[in-house]
Amino acid sequence: MSPTDNSETTGRRRGRRPAGQDTRTALVDAARAVFAETGYDGATVRAIATRAGVDAAMVNHWFGSKEGLFAQAVLELPFDPLELQKALRQGPDEELGERIVRTFITRWDSAGGGQFVALMRSITGHEQAGHVLRDFFQKFFSALITSVGADRIPLRMNLCASQMVGLGMVRYVAKFEPLTSEDVEVLVRAIAPNLQRYLTGDIG
Amino acid sequence: MSPTDNSETTGRRRGRRPAGQDTRTALVDAARAVFAETGYDGATVRAIATRAGVDAAMVNHWFGSKEGLFAQAVLELPFDPLELQKALRQGPDEELGERIVRTFITRWDSAGGGQFVALMRSITGHEQAGHVLRDFFQKFFSALITSVGADRIPLRMNLCASQMVGLGMVRYVAKFEPLTSEDVEVLVRAIAPNLQRYLTGDIG
Repeated sequence: MSPTDNSETTGRRRGRRPAGQDTRTALVDAARAVFAETGYDGATVRAIATRAGVDAAMVNHWFGSKEGLFAQAVLELPFDPLELQKALRQGPDEELGERIVRTFITRWDSAGGGQFVALMRSITGHEQAGHVLRDFFQKFFSALITSVGADRIPLRMNLCASQMVGLGMVRYVAKFEPLTSEDVEVLVRAIAPNLQRYLTGDIG
Repeated sequence: MSPTDNSETTGRRRGRRPAGQDTRTALVDAARAVFAETGYDGATVRAIATRAGVDAAMVNHWFGSKEGLFAQAVLELPFDPLELQKALRQGPDEELGERIVRTFITRWDSAGGGQFVALMRSITGHEQAGHVLRDFFQKFFSALITSVGADRIPLRMNLCASQMVGLGMVRYVAKFEPLTSEDVEVLVRAIAPNLQRYLTGDIG
């Protein structure tokens, strides 16, 4: 089946198999439906691929993982979370907060900020989106914090989320000045020590 | 005019003058319209009272001030901001962060959290709401921070807002656990030192 073959007549056992960007679009649509129906933990790559009428290997091909599919299809995040986790682990533990703040701002700035607004709108508008996002962030931050060996990981993860979600709300949604126009390194110096305390410091 | 007099026939120069709770409701409706049209700074107590068809003194009677009217009519905050500012100033400067975190959580917990969701929804849904909220928070936090004598007040105010908005997002909107069910004093110990650094510490 050629990458541009898109005709109904090539349909097989599971119905028409879309090709190239069509596969990606079909997976995005299927993922949104399945994550909404079953939540983050309940959704399986197999169920999403079946609903999209494509092979499960296509999820890895297009999104790297279930996390990547969720991040890009549902949250429309401007990055692949597993690739990002790996990048954030490169460097000293005591500078993890700095790397997270710098990466968060540069990635969302590049994406234009509007995507962060859409993400927050979906969370404030739908109870379910909050649950799904929580499961996702829990896994994302827990993996990072576990790697630096701190105690009370779930609470630390929540505290980190509070600072980073709030930073995004103020910079991209409410657009407070001077923070919205502030240089990324000024914000790294201001915010990173607080994030680092949540990650590895004494939190009471 | 008796407090329960509500008939059209008592109308005078400015039209019917509502009484008691009717006055309050008329002011809330007028405030929402005027703040939306002119923004926080542009809106005057006089313009709002005129639109409501009541005397400007009624704003002070029911809401204490323009800030109080905005907080309760538009943001539907579960407190009067000027009264709160006064309360937060009672105590040592180095414990201001602690008082803010404790007060924020106890007030919003009492209000049920749903009001915080509504507030965030209005901010994420409307560009204008972000501007109006920014002006309001700028004044609220600036007054507090000015009183403790720190430099770079606008940036510090923004940083405080990022932590407090994020705390509300995680506790009341996305409902991350364990933070959502966590005891207020555990959260005060975890978060207050970070807020205090934003208020009076070295932010780079």
